[in-house]
Amino acid sequence: MIVRERPSGLRLLLVLRGSVLQRIQRSLLLNIALATLVTAVHGNLFSLKITLTPIPFTLIGLPLAIFLGFRNTTAYDRYWEGRKLWGELVHRTRSLSRQCLGWIEGGGPIASARRDTDVRVRIIHRAIAFAHVLRMRLRDQRDEALLQQWLTPTDFDAVREASDPASMILLDIGRDLGECVRTDRIQPCLAASIDGTLSSLAAVAASCERIKNTPIPFSYTLLLHRTAYMYCFLLPFGLVDTTGFMTPFVVGIVAYTFFGLDALGDEIEEPFGLENNDLPLDMLCRSIEISLLESLGEKDLPAPIEVDNFRLT
Amino acid sequence: MIVRERPSGLRLLLVLRGSVLQRIQRSLLLNIALATLVTAVHGNLFSLKITLTPIPFTLIGLPLAIFLGFRNTTAYDRYWEGRKLWGELVHRTRSLSRQCLGWIEGGGPIASARRDTDVRVRIIHRAIAFAHVLRMRLRDQRDEALLQQWLTPTDFDAVREASDPASMILLDIGRDLGECVRTDRIQPCLAASIDGTLSSLAAVAASCERIKNTPIPFSYTLLLHRTAYMYCFLLPFGLVDTTGFMTPFVVGIVAYTFFGLDALGDEIEEPFGLENNDLPLDMLCRSIEISLLESLGEKDLPAPIEVDNFRLT
Amino acid sequence: MIVRERPSGLRLLLVLRGSVLQRIQRSLLLNIALATLVTAVHGNLFSLKITLTPIPFTLIGLPLAIFLGFRNTTAYDRYWEGRKLWGELVHRTRSLSRQCLGWIEGGGPIASARRDTDVRVRIIHRAIAFAHVLRMRLRDQRDEALLQQWLTPTDFDAVREASDPASMILLDIGRDLGECVRTDRIQPCLAASIDGTLSSLAAVAASCERIKNTPIPFSYTLLLHRTAYMYCFLLPFGLVDTTGFMTPFVVGIVAYTFFGLDALGDEIEEPFGLENNDLPLDMLCRSIEISLLESLGEKDLPAPIEVDNFRLT
Amino acid sequence: MIVRERPSGLRLLLVLRGSVLQRIQRSLLLNIALATLVTAVHGNLFSLKITLTPIPFTLIGLPLAIFLGFRNTTAYDRYWEGRKLWGELVHRTRSLSRQCLGWIEGGGPIASARRDTDVRVRIIHRAIAFAHVLRMRLRDQRDEALLQQWLTPTDFDAVREASDPASMILLDIGRDLGECVRTDRIQPCLAASIDGTLSSLAAVAASCERIKNTPIPFSYTLLLHRTAYMYCFLLPFGLVDTTGFMTPFVVGIVAYTFFGLDALGDEIEEPFGLENNDLPLDMLCRSIEISLLESLGEKDLPAPIEVDNFRLT
Amino acid sequence: MIVRERPSGLRLLLVLRGSVLQRIQRSLLLNIALATLVTAVHGNLFSLKITLTPIPFTLIGLPLAIFLGFRNTTAYDRYWEGRKLWGELVHRTRSLSRQCLGWIEGGGPIASARRDTDVRVRIIHRAIAFAHVLRMRLRDQRDEALLQQWLTPTDFDAVREASDPASMILLDIGRDLGECVRTDRIQPCLAASIDGTLSSLAAVAASCERIKNTPIPFSYTLLLHRTAYMYCFLLPFGLVDTTGFMTPFVVGIVAYTFFGLDALGDEIEEPFGLENNDLPLDMLCRSIEISLLESLGEKDLPAPIEVDNFRLT
Repeated sequence: MIVRERPSGLRLLLVLRGSVLQRIQRSLLLNIALATLVTAVHGNLFSLKITLTPIPFTLIGLPLAIFLGFRNTTAYDRYWEGRKLWGELVHRTRSLSRQCLGWIEGGGPIASARRDTDVRVRIIHRAIAFAHVLRMRLRDQRDEALLQQWLTPTDFDAVREASDPASMILLDIGRDLGECVRTDRIQPCLAASIDGTLSSLAAVAASCERIKNTPIPFSYTLLLHRTAYMYCFLLPFGLVDTTGFMTPFVVGIVAYTFFGLDALGDEIEEPFGLENNDLPLDMLCRSIEISLLESLGEKDLPAPIEVDNFRLT
Repeated sequence: MIVRERPSGLRLLLVLRGSVLQRIQRSLLLNIALATLVTAVHGNLFSLKITLTPIPFTLIGLPLAIFLGFRNTTAYDRYWEGRKLWGELVHRTRSLSRQCLGWIEGGGPIASARRDTDVRVRIIHRAIAFAHVLRMRLRDQRDEALLQQWLTPTDFDAVREASDPASMILLDIGRDLGECVRTDRIQPCLAASIDGTLSSLAAVAASCERIKNTPIPFSYTLLLHRTAYMYCFLLPFGLVDTTGFMTPFVVGIVAYTFFGLDALGDEIEEPFGLENNDLPLDMLCRSIEISLLESLGEKDLPAPIEVDNFRLT
Repeated sequence: MIVRERPSGLRLLLVLRGSVLQRIQRSLLLNIALATLVTAVHGNLFSLKITLTPIPFTLIGLPLAIFLGFRNTTAYDRYWEGRKLWGELVHRTRSLSRQCLGWIEGGGPIASARRDTDVRVRIIHRAIAFAHVLRMRLRDQRDEALLQQWLTPTDFDAVREASDPASMILLDIGRDLGECVRTDRIQPCLAASIDGTLSSLAAVAASCERIKNTPIPFSYTLLLHRTAYMYCFLLPFGLVDTTGFMTPFVVGIVAYTFFGLDALGDEIEEPFGLENNDLPLDMLCRSIEISLLESLGEKDLPAPIEVDNFRLT
Repeated sequence: MIVRERPSGLRLLLVLRGSVLQRIQRSLLLNIALATLVTAVHGNLFSLKITLTPIPFTLIGLPLAIFLGFRNTTAYDRYWEGRKLWGELVHRTRSLSRQCLGWIEGGGPIASARRDTDVRVRIIHRAIAFAHVLRMRLRDQRDEALLQQWLTPTDFDAVREASDPASMILLDIGRDLGECVRTDRIQPCLAASIDGTLSSLAAVAASCERIKNTPIPFSYTLLLHRTAYMYCFLLPFGLVDTTGFMTPFVVGIVAYTFFGLDALGDEIEEPFGLENNDLPLDMLCRSIEISLLESLGEKDLPAPIEVDNFRLT
Repeated sequence: MIVRERPSGLRLLLVLRGSVLQRIQRSLLLNIALATLVTAVHGNLFSLKITLTPIPFTLIGLPLAIFLGFRNTTAYDRYWEGRKLWGELVHRTRSLSRQCLGWIEGGGPIASARRDTDVRVRIIHRAIAFAHVLRMRLRDQRDEALLQQWLTPTDFDAVREASDPASMILLDIGRDLGECVRTDRIQPCLAASIDGTLSSLAAVAASCERIKNTPIPFSYTLLLHRTAYMYCFLLPFGLVDTTGFMTPFVVGIVAYTFFGLDALGDEIEEPFGLENNDLPLDMLCRSIEISLLESLGEKDLPAPIEVDNFRLT
């Protein structure tokens, strides 16, 4: 995620970090070059005058506007839903920790070191592992050392081999909870509350996978790209008789906006990656770690992940 | 569902797999042929000059844009709601499995083979059957051998004859749960949690049926088709005096976009079928199978369904 | 609801059943007649040339487009919310039946005939009556014989006299449930689950009434009608100098689209009636009947309501 | 709320009741007068020709369209959310009544007259008072006699002095419920269900206050008004050379639509007042009264509030 | 938040308080100065005539309109979600107070002074602290004296040192509740209800942080600014041949609207600050204080925060 103040004045035109320019520069330069060429020959192709006039562009502009508006909104909705899901992950894990510490009768003081014997610590550490597992799955990463830190050896083995590690962690928590109910360490009603939190975590994981695995239908994306590219590459023929030597400049602005919108849509449509405008999952995982360790009374907390060169991962 | 990277550069114009071109080629060719004809005779019909000028197209373009935007958004909303419902199916069945394994006291170790005697296994297998039954109903398929695999003979007979097989499976689960409560194998509070999961599954099934059975009102679709077709087929008369020999080309681009948007809307409006852009229900059912069998400790899991020739069913 | 495949090719232009043409034919013909007249006199009114030019129509077109888009979306949202509510009715009644059969300890086998003595049968029959009562209220129908079929005589008397019969049925169910709790035939926690289902049914009924009783503010509808009619009836004056003898044709297309959109909005804004595009409440009630009777083990089920002449009521 | 059929034909143009004309007549007349003046002098101001041409209006029209569409949708969303909240109030109070009558063991038959001794009656009467209190707060009304009718003297004193009377009523119900739990007149699980209903009522009250107290940001409203007024008052200068003596007429239509949309937005943005298009809170309160008294077995019910001169308050 | 009536007539044009003019005056004046210059030299730059004509502005206007509409809607959605979250904070804290007072058996009469010994008072005071802590975090404020007023010394120390003070408060409440369950001062089912309220409070806090920390992707904002600024600063070249000496005036209106919309989007995108159009968190915190103290029977309530010079903080 890019984190910076909006530049003002002339600097506005010079900012590169966070701009979409780098992604679209090739198409854009090609388009401007074509426009320059068309301007130079006054729109004649092999002694044949191509007279498109601006009118077709007004007509094609209409479905193109529908497309871009639709894609824009849809891509952002996916981005924002992704962020909401991770926000829910944050507060559900916090609530899980509150519920475990409040409702489950333990056998002694809370301490991270007592994970093997204290079911409360075990569950809270698993919640941290759950966040990391989900992040890794969404980003196709793998970091076994990290998971070993938060899981007991038995849990770790089960999770490593699982085809669906996030669900496996919830299963383990569920089994422990059932054991607590059977040994009267928690009231059934309150165990049901914790179970509700686990179901929410399962929903978060499945919904994130949904966003990752189901893009906007490919045919839409293809249709949009084709229309946008044809529009911009034909534009010089339509404008050259009206705007003269300013044509490459005008075409450049139009293409910058259309290509830029299109590229941004591509980027935030799948918001869990590592690109400029993707969500800062590392930062969110760390913040869950800090919050849950704090609830366990831990004093030695890891540092929050900071913005680095305007960027947060 | 089409799964492929967005092609770049010239290949963009050549991709056919996943493009909407095949669906609309007849109308499109007819339209371009008409435009060519109109261009050839300079817009005269039986020595009568048809002077439409571009102005009416700007005016008709307005309600058409409203229509297309509306239909586009609505069709995608239905597609996405369908996907959300199947995402919910995924995590609700996972939660059902977690709840059964955690809360119900069984009489021995968990194993798929002990389905007839172990209510937990029976319920989890039924959840797999539920997903398959729903898929078959939405796709008007029938595969009794598959169901026999996941249901006891008694259940299978009841489900096969039922007019509403998905509800029948939930009824069977509900009856077993009631029995567990009465024989003190589960706390009532926790049974209520499982009941909540069952209600969510019932909601998923009914909502999928809603999408399948209630299309966008037919009159809307009809009005949209008519306006779009009249627009595109009249367009050559409006453009020929302005764009000359480029007319068929311009008309082709406009018609490609309008017909394409219209056809895509048709396709994703009912997202449960087997067309290019429909949802991969086979893959989702299989993923539920894998996840639930894994929760039962099964080691011999079926393989996930992979993309085949850019396509996932 | 109109259920038919989208016609292709020329038949597209000839379909009448399900088209909005019948509703708007008077205004449309009048508009075309006026356009013909204006064309004949070349836009002169009593030797005074009315020169509107297309420009004002571009300007008025703007707020009109906002209006039509707004109304379109809003009307469809109401239609779809109505359908969602009935979808919820379908699955909540199914869940109610599952819960009653699973949780309530009865005094013998389930059979429709034992309604007077078996509270489970009584509640499930009442749920069927609930659906019918809601349908009747939304459609201002009355069919006492039907209700007598699903209610005990005492219940029937109370419901018939009630100013709010749907709530009365839920009250009766609630009273029976309370009795079951007091006689230990159901665990309180599970009764609370059933109570949740009843509250959802109450919400469905109140929300349907909301849609029926609160139209889009009248002033909006009035403003929209006025602008659309003035636009279409003035249009010939604006076009006649540009499009000549094609004017009535162009005006006809524009008016068909605007009047059509407007009339469709009117129709689906209140989706519970008996017009072409309204929701098939009869079919849904029947489907609830079938589903609930099947859950009671009934073998002799009523037939589903089928499409008749492309129409489902 | 205006309740009337949409007029057809010529009467459409003559309806005044429910039209927005009265609200905007001053600005509209002024605008038309200015247009007439501009037409008379052919756009010359002190022998200086003001040549605006229609082009700037096309360009300004764009952001204005965005504004009006945004404001329209937002204002209606607030209106509809308000209506949904009152719909929820209707069914939550009905459910509260069903729950109290079903779950709480009383000391004898239900009768309104036994309010002081029967907690069920007391709670249901308080729910009626809750609706009235909320209505009064939203409309800045005060009717102590009405409240005295539904509250015991002790409750009434507490509510009258409270800075937040609606919360005070819920507190009183909560206290009575706690008492019932402690005296074993209701199962805790079922009391938790009733508590859920109370929380929903609290949410309804807070959400209505939110709509009333947080308007659309003032700067938006101001920017919209300014742009719309400048647009309409400058329009004659832009049109006079094109449309000649028809200018005041065209300007009138455009201004009627823009000012009308703007004024309607103002009206429904805060939907709880007493203006033409506001919600019929009186009618809804009465309907809650009738429904709840009926659930108490009352025979002598107040009459529903009817439409009076096309208006429902 | 600006609270004032919409001014009417001429005063509309003169209002400054609450207008966005101050924020955009520099860019606006610069733009108008440029337009004046361009008009003076008739669009010639160093004896080179820049002929842009209005056509490019119609084409660029299209993606710009998409952008502005998108940003407008998104920014307002964030504003309104922020307001909804604080509305939820208001009613959840009220419900928490109702639940504590109703369900927890205390050891004597309720009184603020007995906080150290009465868990109910302690929890309700903590809820007040929760609101203040959230406000301070969102506004980067710090007021330890205020927190000391509502927390016991032990709580205060823990909260002051916590990296996530809001969660810490909920943890403290959860621990007290668990203690109440273990000492039989509250039924487990009812404690689960209170726990649900705490989870909602956790969700409110995390969602507010989400809005504060995740702006609209920076690349969008940058692309929008660039397009809007280029549009407005090039506009004089496009208009000067058409509108002559009126050019600076027309450019001024267009730029006022575009820059204004853009600046307003910036302001309400992050609605928790202290700018003109931000949410009145101080007022809402005070209102929670009043409501909760009233529920404790307190007579000496703090005064509500009033509008000061049309502004509410």
